[in-house]
Amino acid sequence: MRPRRGILFVLSAPSGAGKTTLAREAVNKIPALELSISLTTRAPRKGEVDGVDYYFVSEAEFKQRLARGELAEHANVFGAWYGTLRLPLERAIAEGRDMLLDIDVQGARQISALYGPDVVRIFVIPPTFADLEIRLRQRATEDEVRIQERLARARAEYQAYPEYDYLIINSERTEAVKKLWAVAVAERLKVSRLSRDFAPWN
Amino acid sequence: MRPRRGILFVLSAPSGAGKTTLAREAVNKIPALELSISLTTRAPRKGEVDGVDYYFVSEAEFKQRLARGELAEHANVFGAWYGTLRLPLERAIAEGRDMLLDIDVQGARQISALYGPDVVRIFVIPPTFADLEIRLRQRATEDEVRIQERLARARAEYQAYPEYDYLIINSERTEAVKKLWAVAVAERLKVSRLSRDFAPWN
Repeated sequence: MRPRRGILFVLSAPSGAGKTTLAREAVNKIPALELSISLTTRAPRKGEVDGVDYYFVSEAEFKQRLARGELAEHANVFGAWYGTLRLPLERAIAEGRDMLLDIDVQGARQISALYGPDVVRIFVIPPTFADLEIRLRQRATEDEVRIQERLARARAEYQAYPEYDYLIINSERTEAVKKLWAVAVAERLKVSRLSRDFAPWN
Repeated sequence: MRPRRGILFVLSAPSGAGKTTLAREAVNKIPALELSISLTTRAPRKGEVDGVDYYFVSEAEFKQRLARGELAEHANVFGAWYGTLRLPLERAIAEGRDMLLDIDVQGARQISALYGPDVVRIFVIPPTFADLEIRLRQRATEDEVRIQERLARARAEYQAYPEYDYLIINSERTEAVKKLWAVAVAERLKVSRLSRDFAPWN
């Protein structure tokens, strides 16, 4: 008997909040938490590996998978498509394994609508908007126009935090990872997640 | 502006599950968590200090406070009265401070009914009923009749765990304290607890 269903931990943040780094570190530090690998049509950045950071696919393949209903969520961000395959998520829920989804606000809404109580939504923000700007400029992978686009988008995305279950203010990464660990451990202890036939003393 | 209201963490367990030791250790390990001190009419056990472990009161005083509506919860366990004063709880909630209440199933129901969403209910059980029996016999403060009474009561109390928010299986105390820590940290991060005027980026 499986004691409970798997949990989908959805991690969202305004771009530049350090979400992707946090997600990687979280799956390293939190036992039995797998990272969900997204599909994307954008070009790999330096150091990104296909099948590890993303599945890099053509726009034709992305649209075909979308049309076939293979995606649990999808979103267009700055002209590139991002999406998550349904199959690994549904298998994880059924098998009682937990997954971490590093996705945006639009994707989080779709995952919530599809998997309801099996979803835990976590929103990460830097302490101030100024911190976000600093982080975006430090990354220095983009020109000023793109940075301004991202800042405007971040302001808008930030407004969505009340839709989430948990808010983590990421002032220090180790602290933020500890908080993610706490959320994962606590959610796994929830009585509402236990199977109906769970009976530890029998 | 206070970012959020205080949380009342209610810790219940069948007697012999190691709840009181766990509660003491939790308030030592978890920052900014205070232990709520109960009133009781039972006699102090060896080493127990008035005002630290309990407020030891006469039955007359207990009944007077109860009649005046000063108690947020009360219960009779094996002939002795136990209760929690309303005032420190309501002050903590208003001031955004968190408290840990080491109380039984009857008391937990009353606290839940009074303080609803400000309450987080945690149930602790040993891994098996046999473990509980071993722990009760190791304590060796009571004769066989009392032990049998406690075991029967524990069996009955155990049935109440589905009323709780979290279930902690206490196989190892350090692990159990970590789990309590995780629950406290996670609950403090809940978006639903933030004040309406909470606006970190403004």
